[in-house]
Amino acid sequence: MTYCVGLRLNTGLVFMSDTRTNAGVDNISTFRKMQCWSVPGERVITVLTAGNLATTQAVISLLDERTKAHGERNPSIFEQPSMFQVARLIGETLREVIAEHAESGQRADAAFNATMIVGGQIGLGEPRLFLIYPEGNFIEASADTPFFQIGETKYGRPILVRAFDPDMSFADAIKLLLVSFDSTIKANLSVGLPLDFQIYETGSLQPGEIHRVERDDAYFQTISHGWGDALKIAIDSLPPYEITPG
Amino acid sequence: MTYCVGLRLNTGLVFMSDTRTNAGVDNISTFRKMQCWSVPGERVITVLTAGNLATTQAVISLLDERTKAHGERNPSIFEQPSMFQVARLIGETLREVIAEHAESGQRADAAFNATMIVGGQIGLGEPRLFLIYPEGNFIEASADTPFFQIGETKYGRPILVRAFDPDMSFADAIKLLLVSFDSTIKANLSVGLPLDFQIYETGSLQPGEIHRVERDDAYFQTISHGWGDALKIAIDSLPPYEITPG
Repeated sequence: MTYCVGLRLNTGLVFMSDTRTNAGVDNISTFRKMQCWSVPGERVITVLTAGNLATTQAVISLLDERTKAHGERNPSIFEQPSMFQVARLIGETLREVIAEHAESGQRADAAFNATMIVGGQIGLGEPRLFLIYPEGNFIEASADTPFFQIGETKYGRPILVRAFDPDMSFADAIKLLLVSFDSTIKANLSVGLPLDFQIYETGSLQPGEIHRVERDDAYFQTISHGWGDALKIAIDSLPPYEITPG
Repeated sequence: MTYCVGLRLNTGLVFMSDTRTNAGVDNISTFRKMQCWSVPGERVITVLTAGNLATTQAVISLLDERTKAHGERNPSIFEQPSMFQVARLIGETLREVIAEHAESGQRADAAFNATMIVGGQIGLGEPRLFLIYPEGNFIEASADTPFFQIGETKYGRPILVRAFDPDMSFADAIKLLLVSFDSTIKANLSVGLPLDFQIYETGSLQPGEIHRVERDDAYFQTISHGWGDALKIAIDSLPPYEITPG
């Protein structure tokens, strides 16, 4: 499994992903699930991937090759005029890769599936954030739904639902995401450290901080240990139930 | 879906279940998923059920009928000498009901599956807590794994993992469970109010408080509203990430 989140803040976008992939419990590897392409001053595009690793790597490789080979018959995400067209192109590429694998005689086509979060900004357009389905179609984050999760989403969702605020700073958003990821890692073996995150500030048109959080990262340790204590204090701050005398 | 939890505390057992059942999103009903049988002074047995409603109702009805009809050819949970034998009997009953439905020509046998939590105390034995699988086999809660969840378990798990303590009082356990259920209800439409809970105090050999938490329950409202604020305070108590200047 995998866990990735993309947040749409009022000041920009924040992305975080884990790096664990597994086929069974005895075949565990570390792969980056976050990819960023940029033309400084013109566009920044970040993609998070969850699902079949062969599928997601094929999609990322296809997209990447096309940014380097000009004049190919297939369009590049660098040639798209808007984030909407970028999402459409990535969705089409994803659908084609899945279809190709499924058509090659394999029956377990569900196993080739993948889901993606795509975010970024092009020129004078607004920063936009999309969730792309295996079928190639996609939805966009809005004021009502300002973040997307993919992969093993359930453990880390309650804290996002309660504490996410589009007005929050990048610093607070990273903190919130680390709590959400830590809760997931503590409950599920298929999500694991290290974590990658990236910040994109609206209008900068260049990648913000890109950071890998290793197991011994001092800030992550502070959050992981501190959160247990903070939760206990939070629980203690609520009144206990009054047992009806038997 | 469903969400049920059984906790093993040092002072006894606590059970909580939601009441929503659904077949699709437009066929929603309320059913009790907690059943308690007792012979005061001799035994108390509580069962929580998740999965196919026809299966769980059939199992509960069979178990219930046999407690009332003495001398039947099938044994009753009232005749078992230990909680281990009770768990075995319930597991066998569950497996038989699933097999009966599956053998009747229906192919979707997975859809008949159900899982159960069984807890209680008989005579001088210790209170025991079991998780029963659709295959009829089961595992028992221990000091390492002092609680079981069934149904939609993921959303409410992180808070249990972090804050559960077998030394906690019944009053604090009810509070913790309400937080876990509230987090699940906020994130998933298939788990819904009202909630049922039951307390069993070690050695009492009679059911403790059994309570239904309705939507307008004052204590639940306090916890549900208070938890959002308490979480924000908890998050604020941790230091924000220090963004590396770009």
